Amino acid sequence: MKAAGLAALEAAFGTAYSSAAAVRRHHAATEGLFSTDMPDAVVALSTTADVARAMALCAQHRLPVIPYGAGSSVEGQLVAVSGGVSFDLCGMNRVLAVRSADMDVTVEAGVTRRTLNQHLRDAGVFFPVDPGADASLGGMAATSATGTTTVRYGGMRENVLGLTVVLPSGEIIRTGGRARKSSAGYDLTRLMIGSEGTLGIITELTLRVHPIPEQTLAAVCPFSTLEGAVAAVIEALQCGVDVARIELLDALQMRAVNAHGKTAYPEAATLFLEFHGTAAGVADHAATMAAIATANGGGAFEQALRAEDRTRMWDARHRAYFAALALCPGKVGVVTDVCVPISALADNLLAARHDIDAAGLTGPVLGHVGDGNFHAILLVDPADDEETTRAKAVAAQMVERSLASGGTCTGEHGIGLGKKAFLRAEAGDGAVAMMRAIKSAVDPHGLMNPGKVFDCSASC
Amino acid sequence: MKAAGLAALEAAFGTAYSSAAAVRRHHAATEGLFSTDMPDAVVALSTTADVARAMALCAQHRLPVIPYGAGSSVEGQLVAVSGGVSFDLCGMNRVLAVRSADMDVTVEAGVTRRTLNQHLRDAGVFFPVDPGADASLGGMAATSATGTTTVRYGGMRENVLGLTVVLPSGEIIRTGGRARKSSAGYDLTRLMIGSEGTLGIITELTLRVHPIPEQTLAAVCPFSTLEGAVAAVIEALQCGVDVARIELLDALQMRAVNAHGKTAYPEAATLFLEFHGTAAGVADHAATMAAIATANGGGAFEQALRAEDRTRMWDARHRAYFAALALCPGKVGVVTDVCVPISALADNLLAARHDIDAAGLTGPVLGHVGDGNFHAILLVDPADDEETTRAKAVAAQMVERSLASGGTCTGEHGIGLGKKAFLRAEAGDGAVAMMRAIKSAVDPHGLMNPGKVFDCSASC
Repeated sequence: MKAAGLAALEAAFGTAYSSAAAVRRHHAATEGLFSTDMPDAVVALSTTADVARAMALCAQHRLPVIPYGAGSSVEGQLVAVSGGVSFDLCGMNRVLAVRSADMDVTVEAGVTRRTLNQHLRDAGVFFPVDPGADASLGGMAATSATGTTTVRYGGMRENVLGLTVVLPSGEIIRTGGRARKSSAGYDLTRLMIGSEGTLGIITELTLRVHPIPEQTLAAVCPFSTLEGAVAAVIEALQCGVDVARIELLDALQMRAVNAHGKTAYPEAATLFLEFHGTAAGVADHAATMAAIATANGGGAFEQALRAEDRTRMWDARHRAYFAALALCPGKVGVVTDVCVPISALADNLLAARHDIDAAGLTGPVLGHVGDGNFHAILLVDPADDEETTRAKAVAAQMVERSLASGGTCTGEHGIGLGKKAFLRAEAGDGAVAMMRAIKSAVDPHGLMNPGKVFDCSASC
Repeated sequence: MKAAGLAALEAAFGTAYSSAAAVRRHHAATEGLFSTDMPDAVVALSTTADVARAMALCAQHRLPVIPYGAGSSVEGQLVAVSGGVSFDLCGMNRVLAVRSADMDVTVEAGVTRRTLNQHLRDAGVFFPVDPGADASLGGMAATSATGTTTVRYGGMRENVLGLTVVLPSGEIIRTGGRARKSSAGYDLTRLMIGSEGTLGIITELTLRVHPIPEQTLAAVCPFSTLEGAVAAVIEALQCGVDVARIELLDALQMRAVNAHGKTAYPEAATLFLEFHGTAAGVADHAATMAAIATANGGGAFEQALRAEDRTRMWDARHRAYFAALALCPGKVGVVTDVCVPISALADNLLAARHDIDAAGLTGPVLGHVGDGNFHAILLVDPADDEETTRAKAVAAQMVERSLASGGTCTGEHGIGLGKKAFLRAEAGDGAVAMMRAIKSAVDPHGLMNPGKVFDCSASC
């Protein structure tokens, strides 16, 4: 059945179909310590109709399908655990409509966030969700991506108005629409967001965009203690300080940044901030923030208004991942991703720092602290089983502590392959059973991205 | 089977169970022109465990269940089309936790939004979603309520962090949690929001709350034309004016307000606005808004900072529904609820005004125009079949025009009984089939609020 299905795909898609090992390997390559099980073939698709046609063939021949965008997911979402066909959507890269009056756009799923923002530059609007990587917008929806600006603008959940989706049957549906809000039936848009390719393939998205602010002010401030930095964040949020980004890098992460970029920042817990608004508004909010920082052990509150100065200031934050990797050349980064109620953030951060150090691991910590979300980048030699085991134990401790604090095992990266047991612990068997029932109803043959989010029994 | 089920409920719940006609009638009473099919019984429930116990009995005896909160839904969501049992949750009225540092609260489903805000008054935070009526928070989640502040704070979809839900089997699950964001599995929280009681019973909610702003500034401004008022709204949103409420009342609605409240507002299309922020910030944004209003034919831009002055100013907006009803004593208000991309708002508003007048109906128009959402209150004598038919035709024209503009048939009231055909037209058969498949998977016996959102076939 598999051979017949692959042959049918090749016949239908010609040179857009490939079973070359290099192409298959590329589509299974992923961050972290996941296996690299390859798909049986890759098909490059460029329209929703083509995706539907390819999906119908896979459904007919019961071939698993793994949607593929920019390949930047970090929880093994792309790994072909049961073989099957990788649907490469990076050729679906057209911006289909920009509607400035309505502040919405429609794009194909393979458009990346940077491409979209370059396209929008002259329209006076921008798309705010910034997960770091230049991810595809379809992939960002599939994993419910968030990032540095979520504290002010929300993540994909809040910024997707509607989707075009190819269902596992090959049928095309549209969810949501262009209205800012709707109470018309079940929220299929939000059901698809975060479903990690297990319910269907997102091929087009209608997104909210936002006016480019009149003024943007960046700031950076080191703190004498990590607790002080977190206390400043809590106080700012409670006072309604209108902050567009508020990121924390711990002392080790700042050391990595300095070593990597030849900068001379104090090697202390540091907040990177950005304010969006009117000239008077950003000055007002930045002054309040500076006072709150000082009251909580903050040092110099350095500010920048000019674009080149802001870019230089934020560069440290944007380089954080590569700076962390450079601490131990040759090692792989295992990135954790808990998110806790903010009152529990300082305790969770300090305990993570303690556990990483006690385990003898190198692992900088940084986070979208306005949302209570933080990551440790645990540096591991994949050939060193003992070190890998220690890193996985520390990552598990972080999740267990997050759950005990009322938090989640994943703030923004998704469940993928690695966090299925944590999902059960977090959501409970009843909620996971409801997710499985939905999966079974929508994808009765279990073709869509199998092995991700939860394990499907035969009934799935 | 029904008699045995009702007897079992009565035995289990004693005086909390009632089959008295007056009680049953009260629980079927609803706004608008819907039938008043009554439930067979009402059971007043006061804990999640009791709801689960009652649900399990209903499941065992295949009795339909209609969740009941404050009774303020407007699309017939409470009507017992197949009889069954109304689960009255208004006794579930405890605020279970207020966590100021985390800016979240946990409440039982029967707590109303006003009760919550009174409870929060000393905590420095408030819950922003304001649909007008003093609805229960469980009901507001079930219908995906929004309202006057959605333009700035979002609706229930954006402000619910997690839910406790009793499933049709009687099982209790928890969805979401207390983290500000999570990518842990399917978004069951958002699936329940807007499901109108057809997938389960929401018994507890964890909600985001927001800091009470340092300064609140209210404003009111009449416009020489309705197009001018809408153009001012579009320009303000594009310029990033930070407005917390922006409501439009048309000339007829303003006439109704004056007649009802003995006020002397100009009887012209009028914007009611509110700004939240720092003292400098609200002054800054209000000044920008005033300039934009003037450039678009706005008259005097009256402002108020003191609480009593703001209340007086907004009173006109808050009385709008009763003022409209008072235009034709004895008539019933049929409330329409379209939401369109804002570039299509002026055309849709003017066409609605034209259609209402051409049909010889009295019907003021008002809306949450920052979201593109507006309502006409069509005054109808329920005994006058011909007038009722004309009103329904006008309401249908408004929906058809909204859909043709890329809008929705319901911005915030839900589908209920009356808009099932419009849901099919809007979402398409494929998307509705997916909703039905989910319904079947979660509620295989079709017990939960039958007849709402879509018609279920035998397979449902």
